[in-house]
Amino acid sequence: MAGPLDGVRVIDFSRVFAGPAATQILGDLGAEIVKIEEPSAGDEARFLGLRDGNMPERGVSACFLALNRNKQSLTLDLKTEAGIAVARRLAAGADVLVHNFRPGAMTRFGLSYEALRAANPGLVYCEFTAYGADGPMAHIGANDLALQAHSGLMSMTGEPGRPPVRVGTAAIDLHGALAMVAGILGALYHRERTGEGQFVESSLLLSSAHLMSYFYTEYWLDGVERRAMGTANHLSVPNQVFPTKDGGVVIIAPSDVMWRRCAEALDPERLAKPEYRTTTDRQRLKDEVIGAITDVTLSMTSDEIIERLGAVRVNVAKVNSVGEAASSEQLRAAGGVVEFDYGGEHVQAVSAPFRMHGTPATVRRAPPGLGADTVEVLKTFSFGDDEIAVATRGGAFGPPRD
Amino acid sequence: MAGPLDGVRVIDFSRVFAGPAATQILGDLGAEIVKIEEPSAGDEARFLGLRDGNMPERGVSACFLALNRNKQSLTLDLKTEAGIAVARRLAAGADVLVHNFRPGAMTRFGLSYEALRAANPGLVYCEFTAYGADGPMAHIGANDLALQAHSGLMSMTGEPGRPPVRVGTAAIDLHGALAMVAGILGALYHRERTGEGQFVESSLLLSSAHLMSYFYTEYWLDGVERRAMGTANHLSVPNQVFPTKDGGVVIIAPSDVMWRRCAEALDPERLAKPEYRTTTDRQRLKDEVIGAITDVTLSMTSDEIIERLGAVRVNVAKVNSVGEAASSEQLRAAGGVVEFDYGGEHVQAVSAPFRMHGTPATVRRAPPGLGADTVEVLKTFSFGDDEIAVATRGGAFGPPRD
Repeated sequence: MAGPLDGVRVIDFSRVFAGPAATQILGDLGAEIVKIEEPSAGDEARFLGLRDGNMPERGVSACFLALNRNKQSLTLDLKTEAGIAVARRLAAGADVLVHNFRPGAMTRFGLSYEALRAANPGLVYCEFTAYGADGPMAHIGANDLALQAHSGLMSMTGEPGRPPVRVGTAAIDLHGALAMVAGILGALYHRERTGEGQFVESSLLLSSAHLMSYFYTEYWLDGVERRAMGTANHLSVPNQVFPTKDGGVVIIAPSDVMWRRCAEALDPERLAKPEYRTTTDRQRLKDEVIGAITDVTLSMTSDEIIERLGAVRVNVAKVNSVGEAASSEQLRAAGGVVEFDYGGEHVQAVSAPFRMHGTPATVRRAPPGLGADTVEVLKTFSFGDDEIAVATRGGAFGPPRD
Repeated sequence: MAGPLDGVRVIDFSRVFAGPAATQILGDLGAEIVKIEEPSAGDEARFLGLRDGNMPERGVSACFLALNRNKQSLTLDLKTEAGIAVARRLAAGADVLVHNFRPGAMTRFGLSYEALRAANPGLVYCEFTAYGADGPMAHIGANDLALQAHSGLMSMTGEPGRPPVRVGTAAIDLHGALAMVAGILGALYHRERTGEGQFVESSLLLSSAHLMSYFYTEYWLDGVERRAMGTANHLSVPNQVFPTKDGGVVIIAPSDVMWRRCAEALDPERLAKPEYRTTTDRQRLKDEVIGAITDVTLSMTSDEIIERLGAVRVNVAKVNSVGEAASSEQLRAAGGVVEFDYGGEHVQAVSAPFRMHGTPATVRRAPPGLGADTVEVLKTFSFGDDEIAVATRGGAFGPPRD
């Protein structure tokens, strides 16, 4: 079945996490993604996270395999005139361009939106930076962790009275990836209606601020600064991890009706008290309510609590390890796992975070080897054999070989 | 200037965070969002996070104001036949429908995709659930925190050897919001090309799995389960918070060239050693490298380190509080703050996490009062005065008044 983005050509200069995660989703939707890589080693993500400093036998990292399906790889040395000339010609024939170079780099290559739009007015040009292209911090380098710190997210993550900790995954990168996808799809929709392309931008800063949006509004309105509360939060009670006989479960009952069901399913005598009836009551008597629930949960196993509360539609979940989560039958049942072969090895990866039932996502290509599709892509973009030979001699695709 | 989604009508049955955050972005892009609310109290988010259990004077929570601009509110009692009849008619005239009811609820209302598509084949129907509509856990209730626990994200967040903690914000909800936006925009694009609507779904499960995607692939390939490492991670060294004279900074230098610049800018003698030269070296000598950097950072202020490393394009950031982050001049410079009035009060909120320069987002409406636009919306959907009167008597919009 055809994907919604069939025939859409994406030239992707981005590296590591956010950009590649974005273009992978566009590829899942049917777009043709041309991943431009630096010839000597390619996307740094190919070698991130190596265990014990050793290369895995398959020669590529798990995170690269997780974020680069449905792409072709073309190597391009943007330090050469020949490489830049090829990049310009690819951009001229593209529907979408994505990059995460630092502000100014694309302008130096003659690949800024302004430089490209005249010849390609339908181009959707998506730029992803750390802090945006302007402003006092635009020149400072950053990554996911830097924005966890800068955004205040880190200050809210940790145990009360102890040092802040990082969010265990690159949440801002991956959120930024979806922000790019949304911006690009919005721009493609506008183009379909009007023929006009446009400049789209996102950044780690905007993505992190979006993740923090309700805390910022609270600060701006009332001057309140939330701090880390372990597994609890300020929104409602109960809303945190409770210890069980054999581990931990989260129990969340934000509304009064859900709280009543929770209290009655766990221990009506100790919990279904009139004093605890409303959201406001439970916030006021927070320590007492949490203590009473803890007394009850410590007398049961995690599974027993999940069975009791799941049956009465109270929000409940076990605290899983990564392996337990990845092995969960529910993830497969929900269509969250995709599969392909890489170098003869069977690989499983996580799907896009949404499913379009009329135009389902497909895996048409495994993640590419570095530069594996250089010639094929050039021919798709109407390069002749002689033009490819000239560019090759000019070092466009890396040091010229004999 | 016209937004890309001008003229697109969205009927939004969703509540609390993920769904409202999604439709707010569609509204920022120009869509008309009709927020359907339960008549007695409306979206629970209106009252979440009240300080000390007291209502703020403005009568609505900061998180509601953060996530509900550019919407109209219409109250509907879906426990009445009259209310359900109105809902069906709105859905019949909508371009997009969004809901986050539990599996089965919309079917009971006669508002399933199957029930609506015949009369409205162009409808983009977006369903957001906890764990998806099928599978062994489909019936279990969950929220952001529950999926932080279930997905393994919580197990990776915290200090080594201490209990796991929550991510300080509702990252899975907000990531799910962008997943919905992406799926809806992809479906609208397909519709623009073909005239066909479709069923789109996302869930907390798919969103959390996407945030964890590279860890799951690593587990599936190699059986590795990552654990919480405070502010450090497994990807590279240095990549964590370092203490300074007056607080903390994150320093991240994943590539060898960036590490060289970092070492030379901070203290060439102690850090620019040949033994620390490569990614692999620094992983192997991790404790030694971190110790050496810490000795250096403790002798400087955070600002001094940011100046030194920012100047040589090394990723660096201060660990900010929520207030420091919200007050950052850079966020305004990057276009990340939008403003409107609510009840005479000036409100600031965070923008969508991407900017479309050709079709910029606008704030056309402040967050609505409960049911404030009921009659206006009904007239837009061609209800006559007599039809409105009949529905009102039937309790469609809440208990009938005289």
